[in-house]
Amino acid sequence: MLADTLARLQSTDRDIAGRVADHLDRLTKPPGSLGRLESLAITLATITGEELPRITPPGVLVFAADHGVAAEGVSAFPQAVTAQMVGNFVAGGAAINVFARQIGARLEVIDVGVASELSRDSAARGGESGLVHDKVRRGTANFAEQDAMQRAEAVQAIEVGIRAAERAVAAGCRCLIVGEMGIANTTASSAMLAVLTGEPVADLTGQGTGIPESRLAHKQAVIERAIEARAPDPQDPLDILSKLGGLEIAAMAGAYLGGASRRVPLLVDGFIATVAALLACRIDSKVRDYLIFGHRSREPGHVHALTALGGDPLLELGLRLGEGTGAALAFPLLEAATRMLADMATFASAGVAGSEGA
Amino acid sequence: MLADTLARLQSTDRDIAGRVADHLDRLTKPPGSLGRLESLAITLATITGEELPRITPPGVLVFAADHGVAAEGVSAFPQAVTAQMVGNFVAGGAAINVFARQIGARLEVIDVGVASELSRDSAARGGESGLVHDKVRRGTANFAEQDAMQRAEAVQAIEVGIRAAERAVAAGCRCLIVGEMGIANTTASSAMLAVLTGEPVADLTGQGTGIPESRLAHKQAVIERAIEARAPDPQDPLDILSKLGGLEIAAMAGAYLGGASRRVPLLVDGFIATVAALLACRIDSKVRDYLIFGHRSREPGHVHALTALGGDPLLELGLRLGEGTGAALAFPLLEAATRMLADMATFASAGVAGSEGA
Repeated sequence: MLADTLARLQSTDRDIAGRVADHLDRLTKPPGSLGRLESLAITLATITGEELPRITPPGVLVFAADHGVAAEGVSAFPQAVTAQMVGNFVAGGAAINVFARQIGARLEVIDVGVASELSRDSAARGGESGLVHDKVRRGTANFAEQDAMQRAEAVQAIEVGIRAAERAVAAGCRCLIVGEMGIANTTASSAMLAVLTGEPVADLTGQGTGIPESRLAHKQAVIERAIEARAPDPQDPLDILSKLGGLEIAAMAGAYLGGASRRVPLLVDGFIATVAALLACRIDSKVRDYLIFGHRSREPGHVHALTALGGDPLLELGLRLGEGTGAALAFPLLEAATRMLADMATFASAGVAGSEGA
Repeated sequence: MLADTLARLQSTDRDIAGRVADHLDRLTKPPGSLGRLESLAITLATITGEELPRITPPGVLVFAADHGVAAEGVSAFPQAVTAQMVGNFVAGGAAINVFARQIGARLEVIDVGVASELSRDSAARGGESGLVHDKVRRGTANFAEQDAMQRAEAVQAIEVGIRAAERAVAAGCRCLIVGEMGIANTTASSAMLAVLTGEPVADLTGQGTGIPESRLAHKQAVIERAIEARAPDPQDPLDILSKLGGLEIAAMAGAYLGGASRRVPLLVDGFIATVAALLACRIDSKVRDYLIFGHRSREPGHVHALTALGGDPLLELGLRLGEGTGAALAFPLLEAATRMLADMATFASAGVAGSEGA
């Protein structure tokens, strides 16, 4: 399935960019005066292959999994919160539910590796969001002590993500927002980013959901020792994923691969999502052109992950929640870009004079 | 009418801030993890006096007027474009129409001083937006040669804005976005901002809708000579408005005064809107607490106007269109902040454990 997805993955349609740029200059506004909205419109056209790109409804995919490394005391929250928050997603009470409703998104929560067994009927308890059971294993192993998972499991988790992206596209979604829930997943993300970029762990590690400053050095030390002990191959994204983990992070990478293979814009959330996007691009660099970055997180590793991808986010609001929230908040800007293309009058149609020799 | 509005203007409700902050920390997210959305929620509560502020539907008020100084060749577009764009607003084809529709706004276009006589039945030609005829005079005089308008006319224009804000509030609008159309109005704005701040004209003057670099020095010289010749009193906002003008800018200041007097959040657009907001604050400093800044414009004077108000905009997208577009694009973030407060579950209600000793 991963092989099929990679075989289908194409480059974006660069030829369309010039036609869209010409149209933008005919609209009733000084040329270029809508700034990044104009470049965003061109990007959306190249991704979708449509001169009037359609991106609604968006689909939000929230992948949940546990991390064995939580046992090292690297998070401000107990591991049980992963499963509790899945319940909150299903009941519709989390931040991502609220923002997904605002943008009219289809939201799906996927258990790709929560440590506990989630109730099969949780979706029936008055909740609004489907919970998809696609568990690869009950959380990763503690990568401070052993590999987080087997290579085959990393591939399975990627395929969970591909399947989720395929379901969203089949359900009519035209833009994907990929979020996550997994206590300790900033630890796994910082570790993988250090291997992917070769940058110092200290520069890439932050307080995550809010560990005290005093525990930050411990978190860094856990990551540094684990990288040395696991010694993943920096050129092999599957090796990095299997040794340092994140079943949900592997699934997110898979969702990006799956969405790109269906020519759907991928609106990237914060730190963890950007690390997953970087992994997807290391699996196939063509994914990069399908990425639009929603926001710049307060988590210090994010700027390094963005730099590795050449990404320039739309929003900077000091967010550090994850779940896909920052991307969902940026979605109305994508919608505005497509509406600008489709609904604005031209100088000719509106009978407005153009600029004088500008 | 201006006096009544000023008499009604109150300070925002600071007491509510603590209660809203407590509620924010009970919601299912790490404390503070929604960054500026959290401070925005508190601001909206202090403005409206509601712990669960309601800000929909928003109202967009676009004030249009002409500037005599356009005769000095300071704009990239001919003066006729002001009236042509009013036609475009009425027909629903301008960028602000598109973004107003996206956010479900009531949009009203007000002729406060277009040079030509606009058709009384333009709103009936299949257009979507009402055109309100509230013309104070047919454009300002050329402030390079004489005062832009009389002091009484500046007050009348402010009252046009107050009336428009009152209409919007009476129609149910709970947030105001104030935009403008007026060829050469960046020239008037730069001139007024130089007087208001005492900063050099060269730092505050940009290419507006897109004059060539070569004409920028001319635009600056026109402004510098006019300030010297008109010599407005820097402590008297009405003197500044009447000598350097902008009937639509006076009306915008009035709309801010009127909206603040009705405790409605004022979502400020770009350069011209921020200069108008600064004028309103010089008329009554209590207006400041009702302002939320939508975006940072590419027009170089904007950052100076923002600094004068201590404003930190939500978006930075390289926009320089005006009309209210940047504020309209930021509105979904305000909506997200209010939805977060109203719709997210608490740790207790969702059965989610809080952070451990954070």
